[in-house]
Amino acid sequence: MKKFFSRSASRFSAAAFQRSAKFAKFTEFDARELSRIVGPNGILTDPNDTTPYSTDWTRQFQGATAAVLKPKSTAEVAAILRHCNDRNLAVVPQGGNTGLVGGGVPLFDEIVLSTSRMNEIRAIDATTGIVVCEAGCVLERLDARLAEHGYAAPVDLGSRGSCQIGGNVATNAGGTRLVRYGSLRGTVLGLEVVKADGTVLDFMTSLRKDNTGFDLKQLFIGSEGTLGVITGVSFLAVQRSVTVDVAYLACSSFNDAIEVYRRSRRRLGEVLSACEFMDGEAMRLVNTHLGLENPFLGRPNYPFYVLVETAGSAGSNSSSQLETFLEDLFEEKLVCDGILAADGRQATALWALRERIAEALRIDGYVHKYDLSLPLSQLYELVEAMRKRTGGIAKSVVGYGHLGDGNLHLNLTSDENSEQLANVIEPFVYEWTASRRGSVSAEHGLGLMKAHCISYSKSPEAIQMMMDLKRMLDPKGILNPYKTLPMY
Amino acid sequence: MKKFFSRSASRFSAAAFQRSAKFAKFTEFDARELSRIVGPNGILTDPNDTTPYSTDWTRQFQGATAAVLKPKSTAEVAAILRHCNDRNLAVVPQGGNTGLVGGGVPLFDEIVLSTSRMNEIRAIDATTGIVVCEAGCVLERLDARLAEHGYAAPVDLGSRGSCQIGGNVATNAGGTRLVRYGSLRGTVLGLEVVKADGTVLDFMTSLRKDNTGFDLKQLFIGSEGTLGVITGVSFLAVQRSVTVDVAYLACSSFNDAIEVYRRSRRRLGEVLSACEFMDGEAMRLVNTHLGLENPFLGRPNYPFYVLVETAGSAGSNSSSQLETFLEDLFEEKLVCDGILAADGRQATALWALRERIAEALRIDGYVHKYDLSLPLSQLYELVEAMRKRTGGIAKSVVGYGHLGDGNLHLNLTSDENSEQLANVIEPFVYEWTASRRGSVSAEHGLGLMKAHCISYSKSPEAIQMMMDLKRMLDPKGILNPYKTLPMY
Repeated sequence: MKKFFSRSASRFSAAAFQRSAKFAKFTEFDARELSRIVGPNGILTDPNDTTPYSTDWTRQFQGATAAVLKPKSTAEVAAILRHCNDRNLAVVPQGGNTGLVGGGVPLFDEIVLSTSRMNEIRAIDATTGIVVCEAGCVLERLDARLAEHGYAAPVDLGSRGSCQIGGNVATNAGGTRLVRYGSLRGTVLGLEVVKADGTVLDFMTSLRKDNTGFDLKQLFIGSEGTLGVITGVSFLAVQRSVTVDVAYLACSSFNDAIEVYRRSRRRLGEVLSACEFMDGEAMRLVNTHLGLENPFLGRPNYPFYVLVETAGSAGSNSSSQLETFLEDLFEEKLVCDGILAADGRQATALWALRERIAEALRIDGYVHKYDLSLPLSQLYELVEAMRKRTGGIAKSVVGYGHLGDGNLHLNLTSDENSEQLANVIEPFVYEWTASRRGSVSAEHGLGLMKAHCISYSKSPEAIQMMMDLKRMLDPKGILNPYKTLPMY
Repeated sequence: MKKFFSRSASRFSAAAFQRSAKFAKFTEFDARELSRIVGPNGILTDPNDTTPYSTDWTRQFQGATAAVLKPKSTAEVAAILRHCNDRNLAVVPQGGNTGLVGGGVPLFDEIVLSTSRMNEIRAIDATTGIVVCEAGCVLERLDARLAEHGYAAPVDLGSRGSCQIGGNVATNAGGTRLVRYGSLRGTVLGLEVVKADGTVLDFMTSLRKDNTGFDLKQLFIGSEGTLGVITGVSFLAVQRSVTVDVAYLACSSFNDAIEVYRRSRRRLGEVLSACEFMDGEAMRLVNTHLGLENPFLGRPNYPFYVLVETAGSAGSNSSSQLETFLEDLFEEKLVCDGILAADGRQATALWALRERIAEALRIDGYVHKYDLSLPLSQLYELVEAMRKRTGGIAKSVVGYGHLGDGNLHLNLTSDENSEQLANVIEPFVYEWTASRRGSVSAEHGLGLMKAHCISYSKSPEAIQMMMDLKRMLDPKGILNPYKTLPMY
């Protein structure tokens, strides 16, 4: 039975914020001028049509929009922004709307600028793997096109079927392949960006190396649409692996899980392609709510599970490397139980246990989601501290994430959206993280949800510099207001 | 016989530039105040002592300095900059002084701020490979320390024995491992930077992931000391490989060399750790000037050579992968000749052929150096065009570089520093590169040498944005003047 909690008042709805008086109201004149730019099929104003763009899939963020614009080219994006900047109309750039912090959702009446109709792959260089494409290309489709040339996208996420590459870059999306291919900051080669005033910034080099001056495109990677709208991306695709193997392991302590990671890095080195963990609570939820079978059926629910994936080129022995590695882990009793997927179907089933946790949580109740970077040795202590702290108030307290990146996804559920629970969690969770010099947003970004938390992870000097940059690039502040930098 | 051409007038000496009147002259008062900060052993003013800091190893850049300062801490760097900013004294940050474009060399009387006494490794996390260290750590020493924990630095350069990690980051150094581990933009996790006015910017996170706001540290990576002085670095070390194999191949055409690269990427995938090329002219020079033996002694000097290196973890079969790959290349006649190093000594000898080309060039004559990114298919056309164009004027015209990165090192020599040759090369070489949407500086940076060439690779909007950033971070322009952004 699915429950979506769409009727509970959200802490992130318009009611909790104040609309800035500096922005103009959308008028008939604007509708006419903007239709002229994008054509009659490129604009939606009927709330029945616009609701999917002003609500996110977690249902945590429910705003409103005066109009959704769907330009087909960079020139159209530039014309839209020129108009909006002149008229002081606020704009929210939106990709696949799969973010988890409300970064792409309008709040009051901001215009949504959707890149979904900009989905052309401009070029794939078969020799170098350098790809040039529009921002609206859906990750999964892009990856399928790259597969034809023996390449793969350098980023992969559970939302691959709807997220867009432009949104991935704008939020510096992490995902499960980061441990192998690094962040988008290393693999993105060029960007085409439109500034708030409509100026097109052409950083669209498709060279692997370019040291002529400052790397300006980096400012826009991870800036959540607050500094400019990304319309084009060039990136370096990675060689597609031929032999992919997945092992699923059970550990009796988090320390053992860390040790499994440490050894996997040493022993599997260049063929390690993922190292994920989930706790027994997460397993219970995917079993209960999604009917996914525990691979160790009949055994006790272990406290920790680790998913290790290896991926190698055609001639590599990555499969036998993984097997030998697993034998040694058993011998040294670092794992209590383990399974090696015999085929692709089994591998997919094991991955589903990890990738569908978010879905199971949504069924479990109203979800309080936290995405934190912490020193590995202390990472799970927070989940335990939280369990103690919220005993009797929270329904489930779940920890999972990217072990290799020190990235914890901490989730707490309750039957209804509970202000009491929220107050027990925050600011404690952020203070705890800050005191360990962790990050209050490892990969999701700040968006609307955590904009007010920036000081936990950034110094006053850094925040000042961010404000100076915002002022330099978007002096009227029309791009994605209320997000990332709330004080601007 | 070594000739250093130190007496030829350089195109990059003070005589060719105009000292900016906005900077104050260094006085007794400054000497006294600055000594107070760094102590009597931390300041050099005698030209006999300062010359090594105002000249680079290529001898192309010969400037002068009023004083060399060697702070021992970030607090000292901050105090120095506060003084210099108040007094309008220009400052050149300097690491190992191994750059090739004069970015770290003072021109008139700028104060040199050397990071050489800031060489402490603050922490190495054995589990994650995350390193925190001071800017002045010499790359080779740092790498040796990492080796003790099974890790390696993510960057490697011929100048590893003297270059410093802070300088590597400030110039976004590329090198031979980029094809495997990507650029420093992906592997640097945090920076500590001192702004021109002495403000310390603490971006010193040592987390693999942090998406809380803009990634400000990226502005300083590759900014050649014009926006701030890097005093601390945290980065992700890479797993040290256990099996390393080097093959050296001869090809009859550049197209065949490209095909070798393309296949090496496909077939060797994750174990490919370098793919370098050099032409027959480069081979002739290392044979003649350095007495290095051509590994195919007795055969004709082939037009192209490709060095392929694989590196794998303990259990990997990277050696046999390389062998099978080489057999197939021979079978398909993509290579005319080839050798696989039997041991570490032979591997080092093969690497020397590629790494010591710069040294051989310096003996050959006065060197005109260019470092370009080009589309791979057109990369060698430029060397051929240049040979035709400079026939009878240039002594040697040599092409080599990082095949996997589309990075050509084009070098031309003459017996004396020849203005005539310089005029035949430039601006042609930059125009040719720009017309192919290449980069006029792939990895060396702009420095003093190419500051005036920025427009070939950057749009007016990008240059304007760089100027705005410079103004924001260093309003008086005291940091590394005349470099990177000459118009500021």
